[in-house]
Amino acid sequence: MIDEKLKELSIQLPTPPNPAGSYIPVVITGNLAFVSGQIPMKDGKVIFEGKVPEKQSLDSARDAAKICILNGLAQLKLNLGSLDKITKFVRISGFVNSNPDFIEQPKIINAASDLLVEIFGDMAKHSRIAVGVASLPLNSTVEIDMIVEISN
Amino acid sequence: MIDEKLKELSIQLPTPPNPAGSYIPVVITGNLAFVSGQIPMKDGKVIFEGKVPEKQSLDSARDAAKICILNGLAQLKLNLGSLDKITKFVRISGFVNSNPDFIEQPKIINAASDLLVEIFGDMAKHSRIAVGVASLPLNSTVEIDMIVEISN
Amino acid sequence: MIDEKLKELSIQLPTPPNPAGSYIPVVITGNLAFVSGQIPMKDGKVIFEGKVPEKQSLDSARDAAKICILNGLAQLKLNLGSLDKITKFVRISGFVNSNPDFIEQPKIINAASDLLVEIFGDMAKHSRIAVGVASLPLNSTVEIDMIVEISN
Repeated sequence: MIDEKLKELSIQLPTPPNPAGSYIPVVITGNLAFVSGQIPMKDGKVIFEGKVPEKQSLDSARDAAKICILNGLAQLKLNLGSLDKITKFVRISGFVNSNPDFIEQPKIINAASDLLVEIFGDMAKHSRIAVGVASLPLNSTVEIDMIVEISN
Repeated sequence: MIDEKLKELSIQLPTPPNPAGSYIPVVITGNLAFVSGQIPMKDGKVIFEGKVPEKQSLDSARDAAKICILNGLAQLKLNLGSLDKITKFVRISGFVNSNPDFIEQPKIINAASDLLVEIFGDMAKHSRIAVGVASLPLNSTVEIDMIVEISN
Repeated sequence: MIDEKLKELSIQLPTPPNPAGSYIPVVITGNLAFVSGQIPMKDGKVIFEGKVPEKQSLDSARDAAKICILNGLAQLKLNLGSLDKITKFVRISGFVNSNPDFIEQPKIINAASDLLVEIFGDMAKHSRIAVGVASLPLNSTVEIDMIVEISN
C-alpha cells in the first residue's frame, strides 16, 4: 500500500546508501527499528554540503532533509521487506549543520516530518528533536535518524 | 500523588506549549513514552534565548533547563492523564546552546535532573546525555527531551 | 565468555567513572539498557580534552572514543553482573567535540564501533549516529552513549 502511495506521489526510493562507517543501517529490537543517522547521500555522494545559511539556503537544506528521510525509508524497506510493516514513527532526530546564529532548524526538519505524513498519513506523526550542530560527517548539511515501531 | 507533591513544592505545570514544527509532543510505543525536545517556552514565547555564557549565565541556563522539564511533564500529563502513570525516567538528553569554549553543560542539565528527583523521588534517577550545540531552534538556550517508562 | 575475550585481547575494563552530574550510569526498561553518555575519563580525570583537530588529532580522538566505549562496558558490567547478558547493540550515539570545519566524525566513532565488534563479534553491529558538536562536558573530546538489548 505504501508502495502505491509512493508511486502516486511520484517518489522513487533511492538505493539505500552504504553506512559511512563500521555500523549497520537498521537494528531491530522487539518491535522497534532503530535507523542509523542518514545523510543527504545520492548515488554514493553527499549532494548537500556545508552549513546553513553559509553554504546552503533554508530551502536547499529542506531538500537535504527530504533526501535523508527517503534514504531512511529505503533502509527500512530493504531491512523489513515492506514499508507496510511500519506501525508508528516514534522518534525523528534532526541535526542541522548550522552557523552559530542560525535558529530555524525546525523549518528544515519540518520538510522531513511533512514528507513522512504525506506518505504515511497521520500515523506518521512522531516525536522529534531538532538541534543545530557544529559540523556533520562528510560535511553533510543535515543528518536525520529514526526510531519506528513495526509489526512482527 | 504527584499532583500533591507538585502542590507541596509550589510548582504549577505550565500549559504545554505547541510543537515548534510538524510533529507531536508525545509518542507512546509499548510502555515507553517519547517526549519531543522541549525548549524554555512560556506563554508561547521562548524566555531564555542565546548561548551560554555569551547571552545567558550558568544560573539562568539552569532556570531554562527547569522550564524545559516542566514543559515536558506538562506534555506527559496531557497525554497520559496523570503523571502517576510514569514508572521510570529512562533517558534525558540535554542540548545546551553553547559558545565553543563553554564546558559546564552538566551543571545546567543537573538543574533538570535534580528537579525530577525532587518531584518524583529516587525513581526519577535516569540515564543522561549532555552536549553543547552550535545553535538551537528559535534561539533557545536549552533543549531537553525525555524517554519515560509508563504503566499500561 | 566476554571476560575471556577481553583477556585474550589484553583489555582491562576500567573502574566505571562516576556520573558527571545528577544521574545514573545505566537504566533498564524491559530488555533495553540505556547507558548514559560516557566521556574519556580515566581514574577520575578526563584524559582527552579539547576539539578535533585544534587540540586533538584524529588518532588521539579515536583513542578517546575507545575509552568512552570501555567506560560504557564497565558501567554495563557493574549493572548487569556480566557482559554476557548483552544480546544486541542497538544504538551508539557519538558526539565529537569539533572545530566547525572538521568533517571526519565517522572515522573517530569507527574506533568505538570496531572495538565493539572486536570484543563481541558480529552481534555487536549496531545502528549509529555521529555528529560534531560545539563543546562537550568537562571539555571532553568525545562523548558516546549506548542502548543495548539484554536477556532477562
